[in-house]
Amino acid sequence: MPYRAPVREFSFLLDKVVGFSRVQSADCFADATPDMVGAVLTEAAKLCDEVMAPLQRVGDLTPAVLENGVVRTSPGFADGYKAIADGGWVAITADPDHGGMGLPLAVATAVNDMMAGACLALQLNMLLTQGQIEALEHHADDALKALYLPKLISGEWTGTMNLTEPQAGSDVGALSSKAEDNGDGTYAVSGQKIYISWGDSDFAANVCHLVLARLPGAPAGTKGISLFMVPKFIPDADGAPGVANSLRVVSLEHKMGLHGSPTCVMSFERATGWMVGAPGGGMKAMFTMMNNARLGVGGQGVGSAEAAYQQALAYANERRQGPADYDAIIGHADVRRMLATMKAEVFTARAIELDCAVSIDMARATGDAAWTARAAFLTPIAKAFGTDIGCEVAQMGVQVHGGMGYIEETGAAQFYRDVRVTAIYEGTNGIQAMDMVGRKLMDGGDAAFALLDEIEAAAEAAKSALPDLAGAVWEAAESLRETTEWLVAQDMTARFATAVPYLRSFARVLGGHYHLRAAMAEPDGARGKLARFYIARLLPEHVALLAHVRAGDGGLMDITPDDLAA
Amino acid sequence: MPYRAPVREFSFLLDKVVGFSRVQSADCFADATPDMVGAVLTEAAKLCDEVMAPLQRVGDLTPAVLENGVVRTSPGFADGYKAIADGGWVAITADPDHGGMGLPLAVATAVNDMMAGACLALQLNMLLTQGQIEALEHHADDALKALYLPKLISGEWTGTMNLTEPQAGSDVGALSSKAEDNGDGTYAVSGQKIYISWGDSDFAANVCHLVLARLPGAPAGTKGISLFMVPKFIPDADGAPGVANSLRVVSLEHKMGLHGSPTCVMSFERATGWMVGAPGGGMKAMFTMMNNARLGVGGQGVGSAEAAYQQALAYANERRQGPADYDAIIGHADVRRMLATMKAEVFTARAIELDCAVSIDMARATGDAAWTARAAFLTPIAKAFGTDIGCEVAQMGVQVHGGMGYIEETGAAQFYRDVRVTAIYEGTNGIQAMDMVGRKLMDGGDAAFALLDEIEAAAEAAKSALPDLAGAVWEAAESLRETTEWLVAQDMTARFATAVPYLRSFARVLGGHYHLRAAMAEPDGARGKLARFYIARLLPEHVALLAHVRAGDGGLMDITPDDLAA
Repeated sequence: MPYRAPVREFSFLLDKVVGFSRVQSADCFADATPDMVGAVLTEAAKLCDEVMAPLQRVGDLTPAVLENGVVRTSPGFADGYKAIADGGWVAITADPDHGGMGLPLAVATAVNDMMAGACLALQLNMLLTQGQIEALEHHADDALKALYLPKLISGEWTGTMNLTEPQAGSDVGALSSKAEDNGDGTYAVSGQKIYISWGDSDFAANVCHLVLARLPGAPAGTKGISLFMVPKFIPDADGAPGVANSLRVVSLEHKMGLHGSPTCVMSFERATGWMVGAPGGGMKAMFTMMNNARLGVGGQGVGSAEAAYQQALAYANERRQGPADYDAIIGHADVRRMLATMKAEVFTARAIELDCAVSIDMARATGDAAWTARAAFLTPIAKAFGTDIGCEVAQMGVQVHGGMGYIEETGAAQFYRDVRVTAIYEGTNGIQAMDMVGRKLMDGGDAAFALLDEIEAAAEAAKSALPDLAGAVWEAAESLRETTEWLVAQDMTARFATAVPYLRSFARVLGGHYHLRAAMAEPDGARGKLARFYIARLLPEHVALLAHVRAGDGGLMDITPDDLAA
Repeated sequence: MPYRAPVREFSFLLDKVVGFSRVQSADCFADATPDMVGAVLTEAAKLCDEVMAPLQRVGDLTPAVLENGVVRTSPGFADGYKAIADGGWVAITADPDHGGMGLPLAVATAVNDMMAGACLALQLNMLLTQGQIEALEHHADDALKALYLPKLISGEWTGTMNLTEPQAGSDVGALSSKAEDNGDGTYAVSGQKIYISWGDSDFAANVCHLVLARLPGAPAGTKGISLFMVPKFIPDADGAPGVANSLRVVSLEHKMGLHGSPTCVMSFERATGWMVGAPGGGMKAMFTMMNNARLGVGGQGVGSAEAAYQQALAYANERRQGPADYDAIIGHADVRRMLATMKAEVFTARAIELDCAVSIDMARATGDAAWTARAAFLTPIAKAFGTDIGCEVAQMGVQVHGGMGYIEETGAAQFYRDVRVTAIYEGTNGIQAMDMVGRKLMDGGDAAFALLDEIEAAAEAAKSALPDLAGAVWEAAESLRETTEWLVAQDMTARFATAVPYLRSFARVLGGHYHLRAAMAEPDGARGKLARFYIARLLPEHVALLAHVRAGDGGLMDITPDDLAA
């Protein structure tokens, strides 16, 4: 069965679970009427189903390659990209003054999720450009904005993020690329960058690299880093791509998956760049880009999981094994368990993703610091849990297929290989969890406790209608609250030691909350059944996770490198 | 860092954790003295490190291919196989009367585990032949034994298992291959078989296929299945490979991993075969082969996990990121957590594997039904948990590498791709769990309760020395006992619905038991620390799993296919 973008699911989540109507009530999103949002989702779904999904397997079978210094993309990707750009999908949230749609991020998040399920490798290109648009809107001067934003928003040009260097991965502050002032408002940018997704293509008229580099004499660490726009072709007086800049793709990485997305080693050799933001402000600008990109990558996990789930479900409905009274393997309890788990997990991860997007929209609409804090707290959860679920659902998808899952022709294995990188890039999921227990608990836990208040209040309100479910969610939230109170009193080593189980426990409890909301909206149908499944079978994981958290760093760092090698 | 077979780990586990000395005390294993076993492990490790490990990456980069109907294997695999055969490693447990070593299965299990870590694709070849030897020893008549066993034991010939057909996977009883009596003691075997690992090679003088097929008029289902030896070349009067049999490799599967192992579609067209065992006794004979093969596949998961762990540990010791006071990323608490988890899980899965092997040895040595039942109960756990841990540790290995983990050159991704099939073949892990809660609890839970008695008695004995650890293990075992008592009172739908979490909960509790034994043996060193880590952070998973089990099939089958598609 081919992929079908789940429009109805997004409508339900937006309307009944994450309170999107609050965003729609805001003046700045007055255009985002229910009709408008419905039309956007339906139109995006059409593009996903008809144009993008057929490219998913092509990208795997015919990877992007480097030929004479230029990336030749997979067959059909150029046309697919053109359809995305022509539809205006790069710029759903972008400023209408520069040609964007100005719609809420929640809508863009839904569209990006659908497109990730259709063709992850191609969707990544668009996602990166969106991040670049965001960074330029917030940090570039007017001249740069006027020159680059219309081209990026229209999709004529594409954008990349150039952070990582061989010695500087999670530790961005260790980077050594240099930028020297040319005295004419430009800089000469030099250095080698690795893991540059979509560092080049044969379908973009220009590739705009945002590059982190150091000015001469800049302090060590992240404070000495500035951000530069370094285009593949230097725009001429008319703003059209002019002479080639002094940069090149050195090689493409040979990756486990996502073969349709060229991952480049880039070399900049006194390439001409323009500073974005202030000297030393590179990390700040990059964080703008990365914050929404983290949410977007979480959505890549969710979209991939959706696609892997749809394929496994179709297979389980078709494949016959076992006694004749089973119509198909979906009649086997263990297969049913896997499929229900996949569906329940996709729902949870998607609700977190959309709730995070709604929070960002509300922060923009209201300027309220509480919404900003809520968004900031949910972002690492959306990224890490969304991509972990992407990996886990893809792995279950393989298992539902049995032996066929291990054969590449079915595509189940491709989901498993492709989605794996999402748990690594844009900050590994370990880094996300450390961000959560470090930076995001610096408020003493205010954002966390506010979320737990919401969850408990909703559970209280649901108690008369669905006492068992509501009771279980309330108790889980209360356990998480107690452990959060304990955690904020710990030092950073203890927090970091258990950051990953803590993040997951929060996602688990949030999942209970969202499933309960879904069951309240439709108690007797599929959603009520799935909520019962989740709350009885998956929510209890929080007990184990919280026990892990409470172990803190007790004895962990005592296990020395020698002990590990023993 | 290249792979190093963990000889000391096996010695510790055999001596201090799984009570291998009881096997060594048995008359039939009198040759397996401590010196002998030590020498065998050391010699096998040398072969692993020097000959097999260098082939791991070769098999991935240069897969086996089909050329003019013959499989051409990866470069070096022929020499590697010859070294295995010449070392006598195919036949560690085989009958000395036919050239085997006659050593305990526990020793073979250790050797197979080490070899799986060194080169999984090549090790699989040997593992299949071992299973075939086992089946022939138990079920073939003397003529077949005399003809085939010496050649298989010496490694001149290799063996395969031909069960699966396109419409008959987990449901073996649905197979339709036919065998007609030729009237001369041979049968004409016809049919198509899929997923035949090592169905051909360019280094075996003969490939011996054990094929499941139906006699004319045989009843439907598994009762109508008989087993046939169908060699690639029909042995001549001297027992040497003679004329080619009427069978061929139709194609090789394009798999996600394990590229060095050719996975064949086989076609038999009135090929000459000899019946093994009685008419209709095919499944019984195949189960003999599969039982030990299941343990062996569990060991493939464990060995792969070991290798993935070793590589991640080496990377974490070398890779520098973060503040200067961290020597390397191993100094980060989250990386330390991942590495400790990997090590603790490998230990657990390996202890289960070896305990299962010891039980099989003891059953053989004593003829005691309790040992047989213990072995039968542990076998699906060893298979499913061993291979699940293989997948999970390989996935953590990728994560420890960060971006480098997604690049094929490091090899971390290969472990992740290769080991994935082990959770599927030899009976999917779902099938293993169903075997456990179905067939293996048909005794009313006697085997399960006997194991829990052991665990609780050991915990009682450890209480004065290590009260916290022993108390946690005792309580976990008691919770598992209560849920087991509940489970044996349930019908099969409820059991199958929660078979997978039940199996894992049993493995979790067993892990607590083995870690406690390790800590009792070496309370102050690395093992004590790792036991504390496991019992505080990983053992609590059993609480969540048992909650899942207690949900039974409540509401699961109510989630209809339509609900899942909603």
